Amino acid sequence: MKPKKKRTRRIGLLTSGGDCAGLNAVIRAVVRRAVDGHGWDVIGIRKGTHGLLARPVEAEELKPGADDASLLRLGGTILGTTNKGDPFAFPMPDGSVKDRSREIVEGFHALDLDALIGVGGDGSLAILARLAQQGDIPFVGIPKTIDNDVARTERAVGFATAVATATEALDRLQPTAASHDRVMILEVMGRDAGHIAIAAGIAGGADVVLIPEIAWTLEAVSRHVTELRVVGRDFALVVVAEAAHPTGTDADALKQAGGIGHWLAAKLGATTGAETRVTVLGHVQRGGTPLAEDRLLGSLLGVHAVDLIAEGRTGRMVAWSNREVIDVPLEEVVGVPHVVDPNGPLVRTARGLGICLGDETEG
Amino acid sequence: MKPKKKRTRRIGLLTSGGDCAGLNAVIRAVVRRAVDGHGWDVIGIRKGTHGLLARPVEAEELKPGADDASLLRLGGTILGTTNKGDPFAFPMPDGSVKDRSREIVEGFHALDLDALIGVGGDGSLAILARLAQQGDIPFVGIPKTIDNDVARTERAVGFATAVATATEALDRLQPTAASHDRVMILEVMGRDAGHIAIAAGIAGGADVVLIPEIAWTLEAVSRHVTELRVVGRDFALVVVAEAAHPTGTDADALKQAGGIGHWLAAKLGATTGAETRVTVLGHVQRGGTPLAEDRLLGSLLGVHAVDLIAEGRTGRMVAWSNREVIDVPLEEVVGVPHVVDPNGPLVRTARGLGICLGDETEG
Amino acid sequence: MKPKKKRTRRIGLLTSGGDCAGLNAVIRAVVRRAVDGHGWDVIGIRKGTHGLLARPVEAEELKPGADDASLLRLGGTILGTTNKGDPFAFPMPDGSVKDRSREIVEGFHALDLDALIGVGGDGSLAILARLAQQGDIPFVGIPKTIDNDVARTERAVGFATAVATATEALDRLQPTAASHDRVMILEVMGRDAGHIAIAAGIAGGADVVLIPEIAWTLEAVSRHVTELRVVGRDFALVVVAEAAHPTGTDADALKQAGGIGHWLAAKLGATTGAETRVTVLGHVQRGGTPLAEDRLLGSLLGVHAVDLIAEGRTGRMVAWSNREVIDVPLEEVVGVPHVVDPNGPLVRTARGLGICLGDETEG
Amino acid sequence: MKPKKKRTRRIGLLTSGGDCAGLNAVIRAVVRRAVDGHGWDVIGIRKGTHGLLARPVEAEELKPGADDASLLRLGGTILGTTNKGDPFAFPMPDGSVKDRSREIVEGFHALDLDALIGVGGDGSLAILARLAQQGDIPFVGIPKTIDNDVARTERAVGFATAVATATEALDRLQPTAASHDRVMILEVMGRDAGHIAIAAGIAGGADVVLIPEIAWTLEAVSRHVTELRVVGRDFALVVVAEAAHPTGTDADALKQAGGIGHWLAAKLGATTGAETRVTVLGHVQRGGTPLAEDRLLGSLLGVHAVDLIAEGRTGRMVAWSNREVIDVPLEEVVGVPHVVDPNGPLVRTARGLGICLGDETEG
Repeated sequence: MKPKKKRTRRIGLLTSGGDCAGLNAVIRAVVRRAVDGHGWDVIGIRKGTHGLLARPVEAEELKPGADDASLLRLGGTILGTTNKGDPFAFPMPDGSVKDRSREIVEGFHALDLDALIGVGGDGSLAILARLAQQGDIPFVGIPKTIDNDVARTERAVGFATAVATATEALDRLQPTAASHDRVMILEVMGRDAGHIAIAAGIAGGADVVLIPEIAWTLEAVSRHVTELRVVGRDFALVVVAEAAHPTGTDADALKQAGGIGHWLAAKLGATTGAETRVTVLGHVQRGGTPLAEDRLLGSLLGVHAVDLIAEGRTGRMVAWSNREVIDVPLEEVVGVPHVVDPNGPLVRTARGLGICLGDETEG
Repeated sequence: MKPKKKRTRRIGLLTSGGDCAGLNAVIRAVVRRAVDGHGWDVIGIRKGTHGLLARPVEAEELKPGADDASLLRLGGTILGTTNKGDPFAFPMPDGSVKDRSREIVEGFHALDLDALIGVGGDGSLAILARLAQQGDIPFVGIPKTIDNDVARTERAVGFATAVATATEALDRLQPTAASHDRVMILEVMGRDAGHIAIAAGIAGGADVVLIPEIAWTLEAVSRHVTELRVVGRDFALVVVAEAAHPTGTDADALKQAGGIGHWLAAKLGATTGAETRVTVLGHVQRGGTPLAEDRLLGSLLGVHAVDLIAEGRTGRMVAWSNREVIDVPLEEVVGVPHVVDPNGPLVRTARGLGICLGDETEG
Repeated sequence: MKPKKKRTRRIGLLTSGGDCAGLNAVIRAVVRRAVDGHGWDVIGIRKGTHGLLARPVEAEELKPGADDASLLRLGGTILGTTNKGDPFAFPMPDGSVKDRSREIVEGFHALDLDALIGVGGDGSLAILARLAQQGDIPFVGIPKTIDNDVARTERAVGFATAVATATEALDRLQPTAASHDRVMILEVMGRDAGHIAIAAGIAGGADVVLIPEIAWTLEAVSRHVTELRVVGRDFALVVVAEAAHPTGTDADALKQAGGIGHWLAAKLGATTGAETRVTVLGHVQRGGTPLAEDRLLGSLLGVHAVDLIAEGRTGRMVAWSNREVIDVPLEEVVGVPHVVDPNGPLVRTARGLGICLGDETEG
Repeated sequence: MKPKKKRTRRIGLLTSGGDCAGLNAVIRAVVRRAVDGHGWDVIGIRKGTHGLLARPVEAEELKPGADDASLLRLGGTILGTTNKGDPFAFPMPDGSVKDRSREIVEGFHALDLDALIGVGGDGSLAILARLAQQGDIPFVGIPKTIDNDVARTERAVGFATAVATATEALDRLQPTAASHDRVMILEVMGRDAGHIAIAAGIAGGADVVLIPEIAWTLEAVSRHVTELRVVGRDFALVVVAEAAHPTGTDADALKQAGGIGHWLAAKLGATTGAETRVTVLGHVQRGGTPLAEDRLLGSLLGVHAVDLIAEGRTGRMVAWSNREVIDVPLEEVVGVPHVVDPNGPLVRTARGLGICLGDETEG
């Protein structure tokens, strides 16, 4: 547990973007590996890049504690995070937009750091990679996002817990649906990708799963729900990703309805005569005690990120692929969101189980 | 496991009102006790009183199965239920309202039943008691409701699981609130009573709890949230019961906002400048694997209800009080909703913990 | 949140005996109420009475933190505890036994405390009450124990979580039992009382429940398991409290077998020919995220304990009874363990469900 | 939902070996895909190969039900299973051993089946592959095992839930360990491979993890626990796989102690002076509500297994690898158990976190 080498480096650590389960496992792993393993200092930066924008910079040294195991069980991030304020186009109080990237780089150097580890999703990693390039900062990225839309890694930290939470919600809704002969609609997160929706939909026994990657129509969904009733099944479970908008519907109508879930409940009620109820799962998908899976992944990636810096291999993102921790150049990841493959195994399985995806190829 | 007496009686069993966790434990207990214990037949009536309105009557014999333990773990009710259609003022397709109570009594007698056990909340038990009186039906009621607003029993079946679910939602929201410095608002069920809100609010560490039993104002809530920020706490957890409307706000405004949770989020954001997010928990509070507590209570009450009929003591509701199963005359229960006592132990404890209840006595 | 009165008192707080879920909720409630509500100081004493035996005394001031809600979710006790070392007959390193009560009283006074709140089970409360009397210490007790064997309160802190954990273990064992046609035996805690065993047994669908309060024989249990197989049920779930020893079996045989669970597995395998497996649940019953129920109870009792001291009403234990927080003289509680009533509602319900309790009245 | 093709094939389905979470998801997926998708019949064989040994053969047609989503949530296997009785060396009642493989092949043909899908672990798949070859049975295997020791697939069905259960046990033990300053030892399953132990150990914050793949000594473990105490950490969490025997200890000593967990508790108590407690997790690792992960994996593999048969590609095992469902020749899997790589990412991460693995390279 004691430092094994002379203390030679100071690395910064920040979490960025929406919070999720497993971030504190990453923080714990980075600190244990860097401080106890390499004998370095770790400086935790507050609230993502905002901590580097503040003057004085908001940051504090992180030390491995005897009781840091409790961090594993803690949702969210003890460093705080933000998903607002692209530093290259920062929204100023007066309504204008300003490039504040130089201030962040200055903030980084003010802390006298040798390298930076940033934990973020697709968008955050793109921003951090650009900042690192501009400021000549040795940088390693760690992928996290409940949406699981980061390329080159099988899983991002936080995804497994989000899927489990959404699946559990279906487990809770199913008895009510069956007891009352209702169509229950569950709206889950997923701005660009339907990973949570399709994974939870399969695992939770949904009848209909609607994702942004597959064009769907109200008609196809209505037809499926009606067919279920014909064969004696008077209830149905529908999972819809927040961004899975039906073909040819204008955004205003959805907004006025209160989101796609509420819109669909109203429409399906009208077209099928069924009693409908909607649940918008929202932020409960982010928090909660992290699943073992996310704690493990966070630990694996955190340790490897530190070791990459020790080897001088920066400008990379650590990843999990086929039972191995790997690392890939950031440029292979950035701007290449990983969405649900319409011909991939999850979609094929959903179709194979008879789940309606709302497209017209259904039959 | 085999019948111990000559088969002499047929009793009907129905579940009525909103579904909740533990109903199937009641059903299992009634069937085991009546069939195996007393040698009776049990007829399960479908969808509450609707099964008795249908012609032919919708019902089927229930038998104790070797594998009925799985019923304990199953949310909802295998008999189905309904919370629509007061038989004394039944909404007809043509928009009119009709007294259909006589049809229900006829349905009961068509099944050749000796007695009826009905599982319901405050409203359902009132209707069933009235039907029983009108039709001269020996009736025993079993209290169930996530709202816990039935009088004379410490707990109704389903309440414990609903509180645990709402508390778990707070556990999930707290990390996100803290990570992002947000005010998170959780809207829970509770049409007339704030039992879920105050119990989950205390157990989940809420800063503000708003219930229908205590008049509250936006000003008091805003002030409390602002004070928290002054002492360095940049996030807050707010629990609000769906029916906890602020003093002097018209119902239309709330409806247009999409409910009290959304209304409060908008208003609090405006008054305090905080970033707010709202989660409407909805139907996930009803379902899910029942907690041990609700399975136990359902078993206790189900067995006792059957034994009451065996003793000829009908017109009563079974209840749990001070470590004992008791039974009370239905007339002592009906129409006397049990709400949160503004001077009772939960409110006193909430105040004692510094939780803001939104009333002006704060401060 | 700020002190409302002049800081006039210092109270000590300790947790004693086996740890359980909800202790930290008590600590949080005591601190919030005493410091924020009454303006007092709270001194947390380490490891039960051991902290008062140490020189210097091991204790520290506890302050309400902005982030103390996380305490609600934390199992165990941040103060530490011990269930070894009765101060009136303290086991010394040399094997002798010594009365060290005077040292504890001295330790209490060394901290300059005005009153003491002690959280403990039946045994701990007896010791603390005796110490308080001897040292003229104003004392209030708060009942906690997974065994639920404290008199005059419906529930002790920690019981609900322990029952839920044991029930969940049955939920996990049942599929394996059914898939493999096995008799699965679950040994749960309960040194003097079978509360966990009978509550979890009913809630988890056990076929056999064995508790210390009811004399049972291997023959009766074997007969029941065999009868189940006759009616086509090839598996069985058996719950046995650790102290539920069968009539006429010597303690050495049980000890050699590795406890009652292992003993029963071997014997039942021999008498019925069934494949048996045993799970000794052990310490997982104590820990884990506290259930809402235990957090709520801990909060209710903690606040009330502080208020009792404020009113000068010491020498009492706070309790929960019939939807109300009450308090009772310690002498009514001490030495009167609350065991499972062999004619009470749980036993009646277990029999009513056809659960075998192993006594000869079965059949 | 209705058959889309002429009913042309009959396929058998069996589950074999120890039960685990997710088997019913496989069954549901196979039935839905084969019956609804391909228009085939699916015959469920009871209790693994035992159903084919029985005369008459024990099997029944499986049909997709409207309510089959509940299967997803159900642990174990509705078909039953067995992990006893290698048909090539079957233990007969008289103590002899007999090759009964021919009877099983006859049983298969007696059902007039066109193909067989078998769900099993390393051992079961080897037996099934050999039977298929001998009987010329078109066979597809699906990997399941909590031990995760099947080659060529990233995960076997049941592993994720087992890891989550073991991790949750650590979460429950940690508060008790800390509250009482104890060394808590958790013995988890893993006959040949330490996958559960190392995954749960990392995720649950263990201080020591002992697996069969890495030679360890009591001395190294004792030293680590003592060092923790030196730095002020008075408790420790130790995870040990059931087959992780220390170098140079004879099997009899372990057996007499009641398994490696109990042996280690006694030894560590003696060498370090610490108070130790042991929990043998046992069969609770197998059952319980399957995690979303295992339901999803079971669904993916079940659908693909049916499609393989439709394509005439038998003699293969379906697998999950790098975000894709694949299939591999059975001969590449059989007899090649996948154990924890002592130089792989999990071991490297464990070392990187400072977890003691008990080998002498530590320190």
